[in-house]
Amino acid sequence: MLRGLIIGRFQPFHKGHLFVIKKVIEEVDELIIGIGSAQFSHSFENPFTAGERILMIAKSLKYENITKQYYIIPIPDINNNSLWVSHVKSLVPPFDVVFSNNPLVRRLFKEAGYKIKSVPLYNRKIYSGKEIRKRIVNDEEWKDLVPKGTYEVIMEIDGINRLKDIIKKDY
Amino acid sequence: MLRGLIIGRFQPFHKGHLFVIKKVIEEVDELIIGIGSAQFSHSFENPFTAGERILMIAKSLKYENITKQYYIIPIPDINNNSLWVSHVKSLVPPFDVVFSNNPLVRRLFKEAGYKIKSVPLYNRKIYSGKEIRKRIVNDEEWKDLVPKGTYEVIMEIDGINRLKDIIKKDY
Amino acid sequence: MLRGLIIGRFQPFHKGHLFVIKKVIEEVDELIIGIGSAQFSHSFENPFTAGERILMIAKSLKYENITKQYYIIPIPDINNNSLWVSHVKSLVPPFDVVFSNNPLVRRLFKEAGYKIKSVPLYNRKIYSGKEIRKRIVNDEEWKDLVPKGTYEVIMEIDGINRLKDIIKKDY
Amino acid sequence: MLRGLIIGRFQPFHKGHLFVIKKVIEEVDELIIGIGSAQFSHSFENPFTAGERILMIAKSLKYENITKQYYIIPIPDINNNSLWVSHVKSLVPPFDVVFSNNPLVRRLFKEAGYKIKSVPLYNRKIYSGKEIRKRIVNDEEWKDLVPKGTYEVIMEIDGINRLKDIIKKDY
Amino acid sequence: MLRGLIIGRFQPFHKGHLFVIKKVIEEVDELIIGIGSAQFSHSFENPFTAGERILMIAKSLKYENITKQYYIIPIPDINNNSLWVSHVKSLVPPFDVVFSNNPLVRRLFKEAGYKIKSVPLYNRKIYSGKEIRKRIVNDEEWKDLVPKGTYEVIMEIDGINRLKDIIKKDY
Amino acid sequence: MLRGLIIGRFQPFHKGHLFVIKKVIEEVDELIIGIGSAQFSHSFENPFTAGERILMIAKSLKYENITKQYYIIPIPDINNNSLWVSHVKSLVPPFDVVFSNNPLVRRLFKEAGYKIKSVPLYNRKIYSGKEIRKRIVNDEEWKDLVPKGTYEVIMEIDGINRLKDIIKKDY
Repeated sequence: MLRGLIIGRFQPFHKGHLFVIKKVIEEVDELIIGIGSAQFSHSFENPFTAGERILMIAKSLKYENITKQYYIIPIPDINNNSLWVSHVKSLVPPFDVVFSNNPLVRRLFKEAGYKIKSVPLYNRKIYSGKEIRKRIVNDEEWKDLVPKGTYEVIMEIDGINRLKDIIKKDY
Repeated sequence: MLRGLIIGRFQPFHKGHLFVIKKVIEEVDELIIGIGSAQFSHSFENPFTAGERILMIAKSLKYENITKQYYIIPIPDINNNSLWVSHVKSLVPPFDVVFSNNPLVRRLFKEAGYKIKSVPLYNRKIYSGKEIRKRIVNDEEWKDLVPKGTYEVIMEIDGINRLKDIIKKDY
Repeated sequence: MLRGLIIGRFQPFHKGHLFVIKKVIEEVDELIIGIGSAQFSHSFENPFTAGERILMIAKSLKYENITKQYYIIPIPDINNNSLWVSHVKSLVPPFDVVFSNNPLVRRLFKEAGYKIKSVPLYNRKIYSGKEIRKRIVNDEEWKDLVPKGTYEVIMEIDGINRLKDIIKKDY
Repeated sequence: MLRGLIIGRFQPFHKGHLFVIKKVIEEVDELIIGIGSAQFSHSFENPFTAGERILMIAKSLKYENITKQYYIIPIPDINNNSLWVSHVKSLVPPFDVVFSNNPLVRRLFKEAGYKIKSVPLYNRKIYSGKEIRKRIVNDEEWKDLVPKGTYEVIMEIDGINRLKDIIKKDY
Repeated sequence: MLRGLIIGRFQPFHKGHLFVIKKVIEEVDELIIGIGSAQFSHSFENPFTAGERILMIAKSLKYENITKQYYIIPIPDINNNSLWVSHVKSLVPPFDVVFSNNPLVRRLFKEAGYKIKSVPLYNRKIYSGKEIRKRIVNDEEWKDLVPKGTYEVIMEIDGINRLKDIIKKDY
Repeated sequence: MLRGLIIGRFQPFHKGHLFVIKKVIEEVDELIIGIGSAQFSHSFENPFTAGERILMIAKSLKYENITKQYYIIPIPDINNNSLWVSHVKSLVPPFDVVFSNNPLVRRLFKEAGYKIKSVPLYNRKIYSGKEIRKRIVNDEEWKDLVPKGTYEVIMEIDGINRLKDIIKKDY
């Protein structure tokens, strides 16, 4: 039984994320999807709550008819790199391999003795949370960049107006 | 679409919990299972990590072939009753009804405007986390009190020895 | 200009507290009333929020037509005795004298170089937050133990039912 | 009985703030003045403690002979937008309307179901905490930008030297 | 090069502690002495600050003319057993072996892959922090139970009066 | 008996730090060396843990055969300037004089009534933690900028690779 871990902020969960998850889940028996910076919401950088992000991912993966077991788990920041791996370990089921291209994440799990694997690349210019958030506030096309599940959740929670409200200038 | 929330510590997840979840999930379209006191582990009161408890519940529910969507989400304590409902709300998908018999939980969600429903009763003398933990450390019969998934996880993580180690007296 | 500080939990603000405040305010030009354990609420020990306690005190003192300047300021616990005096100092206006009979409070402010004065005694058997909370949940007479302002606030916030809900037994 | 809430950092409390408070207090029966970022002090951005800011506001409002009831309450940051409204609610008396031009504040209270009102505009180029702090450290004219109460408090606490010390370069 | 770790609260540092340290330091090249519950002070359970306890230990060991390298390092509690070993590891130099008879400490370091050794026994009825604190407040003989260094520090910081003040009853 | 305090981040401990410590220790009987931002590690700004920094300093000072008593104590940040002096005081032995050129540190200890002394100057262009970290990641000469003890620790903990890993770009 091989269990893998992948962590992202998913602000919002987009098709690049979905592509990666579908790829890496093939390499494991079960996949843990950690939602980083879980405590943040209602800012341009982190507009959606952990709960809303869980919903985006769950709905999107459901439409994909993935048969393998996965876990979607919020991981609040801890602001202490020495404790971060233990923090993650305590919140998620035991895992064997970590999928990440982030150098700090790779370093921290490597020092803790974990096996690290890179994640496949995709076009990060447009499949990017920041790009999508910009398009949302500028009324540009963004719907095609996210899975249907994400789109539905953003609609359900009135996410477009939340983003537009947040970036307004004080006066 | 009706989404319900139920919260427990699940130390460990036992057949009483399973009975309740199977009952209340019938009343909703989707069920959120919140794991309270998620930050605690390795004590007699809270021996298992949040990740281990997620695994117990996920495995146990899988054996039940439940078809409805459910979410298993760790909820760390916040030690501030005035903030607790907002804390829970930020970590889980939006929900409509809370299942609880706990007076404080009921009161806090009631003040926040939520609909509260009671959970069905079961024999809490023996289907009790404390009772099961006691039996484990005393080498008494406990396997029949927990679902197969819980049993497998406790075996996988060497949970019996962890519990026995923790309750040893200092000398 | 002599400014004094007095700190209490005020769960709820009762006639013993009022008696003390009216006495000690005579000894200073301005009085700071610190509300301790400000972060707690919705428990039997600490049923009322800091904001509700501010309201009780403000209303009660208004009925007394006190002409001297006073400040009512919430002080969350900090769980570190070495930092506590600095914590209090940062939250309240500068002060010259501390009124307290609590040995730890007296010791901590003494080590920090403050002048400490005792507060006048009153019947602490009945003028006691715990006694009043007990009477409320037992439907015994309590109205006469609190100033009018406190009574009005408890009524306004449905405080009786909150207390009764909180102490219910789980089942 | 209509109670309003207005929140600012008040570093320091200036005539723009005073103008706003005098306007909005006319629209309510009681006004709660929340002091944001209450835990910060001794930096250029936040030179004054919560207690010092309380004193500035209290003194300044006293000179204005305002007859309506107001509350001045420190509100530490919580760094979690999802919890912030509950955090504020727990620290202050119950309120009905929030006065703010800040988009995030407006959004968060709107999501929590509160009525929001804009605050009247004033010249924010010169009636600005940052502008006043700059003038203080540069020995430029600033006294006319703050109410008499603020000026007195800054003098009493040796605030000019504190600001000048803080912005010195390390060497 | 073998580095060992031993952790205690040292409230205060007594001859039992000294006996243990002199024994275990023989088994290693360097010894790290961690001061647990470092954030607490001014309570009967934890009367002395971390800094005061460092001083007691440093002075006491100096009188012993120990030639091996040792480190005395405060370790605040973290209230999360899953993070505790990482927390300790981040605060102290790398170590190879942990000396402890405490079952939880042993279990946590064992799960983290450390070698654990028991510490030699001594008379814990009288060489006990609690016993010494009781004797101090009751004006009974305690000087012989602590090393000279501890005694000097308690005198220097007026520790006897601090303890006596703290245990006074409120009235 | 005069005890002094000096605080630095020591990322890493370099010859400028060593020069200063050797100078200021001449002015006191005992010197406390506080390691600031103790909770941070594994970032370019703060690559080394508190424990690793303790080891660098201890080894480096040992090679210098300093005979006076010194204490090396980690001090986590507290993000509240009003509490910082009390925080430091609780973690270290009592002290009489603070050595610092940092304006905020000087101001905070001055407000708390401490005697402040400046530290001697050295070439801060090259004897600078940031400069050394840059040279390490760029494979430039840095060994001569740090004491032998620091060099040995960085080698022992594979510090060069840690720094190089951390500054890699995500892709």
